[in-house]
Formats: sequence, structure tokens, C-alpha cells
Amino acid sequence: MAKRTAPRDESGRYSYDGLYRVLHEKARLGIMPSLVTRAEGAVFNELKRLCALTDGNLSRHIDVLQEAGLVEAWRGTEGGRPQTLYRLSHEGRVRFVAYLEELEQVVRDALPKAVKRPERAPDLPPGFQPA
Amino acid sequence: MAKRTAPRDESGRYSYDGLYRVLHEKARLGIMPSLVTRAEGAVFNELKRLCALTDGNLSRHIDVLQEAGLVEAWRGTEGGRPQTLYRLSHEGRVRFVAYLEELEQVVRDALPKAVKRPERAPDLPPGFQPA
Repeated sequence: MAKRTAPRDESGRYSYDGLYRVLHEKARLGIMPSLVTRAEGAVFNELKRLCALTDGNLSRHIDVLQEAGLVEAWRGTEGGRPQTLYRLSHEGRVRFVAYLEELEQVVRDALPKAVKRPERAPDLPPGFQPA
Repeated sequence: MAKRTAPRDESGRYSYDGLYRVLHEKARLGIMPSLVTRAEGAVFNELKRLCALTDGNLSRHIDVLQEAGLVEAWRGTEGGRPQTLYRLSHEGRVRFVAYLEELEQVVRDALPKAVKRPERAPDLPPGFQPA
């Protein structure tokens, strides 16, 4: 059987370099849409509920987003109790848009093919056995 | 200021439980579309090139996908050299479709809001200071 290799122009075709690691994490991928849909910001308990996260997990992931400059925090009081309000930074919005566009590319590349289940698996090259 | 909380029906609105952890990893998210677009399968070196991964990284991530039952491997020879051919399993296709549909949901939830940059940041509640 002829050697099959990807054509040169397919090199890195599926490397998805835009999947910025700070954002490509399940919990943080809940926090970002929560904030992007709330320009006025969201307080800790609101984020906790929206993302279904524990205190510890939300703290940890918010810290990562803050350290990367994607989220900004403001201290104050609400209803007499100390609160921290979180908002997306300008940088956070820009990076998140770029990340979402890469996610869109993944879906476009794969979903149309994935939903079309082949009627039967194509034949294996002669002599191939389960590994 | 009135206490702001997410309405009850917004609980877990952004928890994205369909982001199956085995698939929600940058390198593995390159391997899966490579295989989904190649029903006949792909050999190790082809995957390496398509995903721009090192030998070590590709091995490690293919192992994770195989252990989860998402990818199957076949041993044989091509051009006289031993080769391993990888294919998506039926389970892999089903899980990947569900995962991609959740990714689509993330994009739908966030992208339209994220691309509309607010003219200026909304006012903070009175008394809030940088944390």
C-alpha cells in the first residue's frame, strides 16, 4: 500500500493554536460567558451559582483569570456585606473573542463529518490487526 | 444597592457539563477532527503532522483516547515499515458529537455578546474600589 502522508499544506491543519490554555479549561469556560453577558459585572456568589462551582474552585479559577489580566476585581459592599465584583477586562474580551473564533473553527471542521456516521467502517489495509 | 443574584432558573446556566474532560484538551481536540475527517484512519506520522505534535505528546494523548475507548488502533505495515493505524471508535464518534454540540452552545452563548464591545464600561456600584 502506498505511503499515506498529509500533503504539506495540511501540516498543523488541526493544531488549533488559538485555543489559549488559560481559557481552554471547563470551569473558566463557564466564568467567561457569565461575565461577557454581564457588562455591569457579577459578584462571587452569582458566579458560583451560574457556573455551579464550589467556593474553592471558583476562587482558584478566578485567580488564574485575574493573573492573566482577563478579569478585574472590585471590592465594595452590597446590602451591607463585603462583596467582590468581577468584570471582564478589555484584554479579556479580546482574548475571549479570538478563543471563541477558534472554537467555532473546531466545530466547523469536525461537526458536519462527525454527525454523518459511515454506513460501515471502510476496509482496513491488508494485514492490519488490532493493536 | 439591591442584592443581585441569578434567578433560580439560571443556576448552572454556564456549567457546560457536556465538556467531557477527555476531549476538552487542546492536543486531543486536534486528534479527534483529524480522525473524524479520515474514516479510513490515519497512521501515527500523519496524525503527528496534522496536529503538529511531538512523538511523545501524540503517544500520550492517543493513549488517553484509547483508554477511554474513543480511538482504536490497528498494527500492520505500510511500505514495508511497521505502522499503527488509528480510527475513531463508534463510541468516540458519539461522544465527540455530544462534545462538539456543547462547544457550539458555548460559542452561541458568548460570541454575539463578546464581539459587541460596550462603548464604555458601565458605572460601578457606589463605593466599589479596585480589589
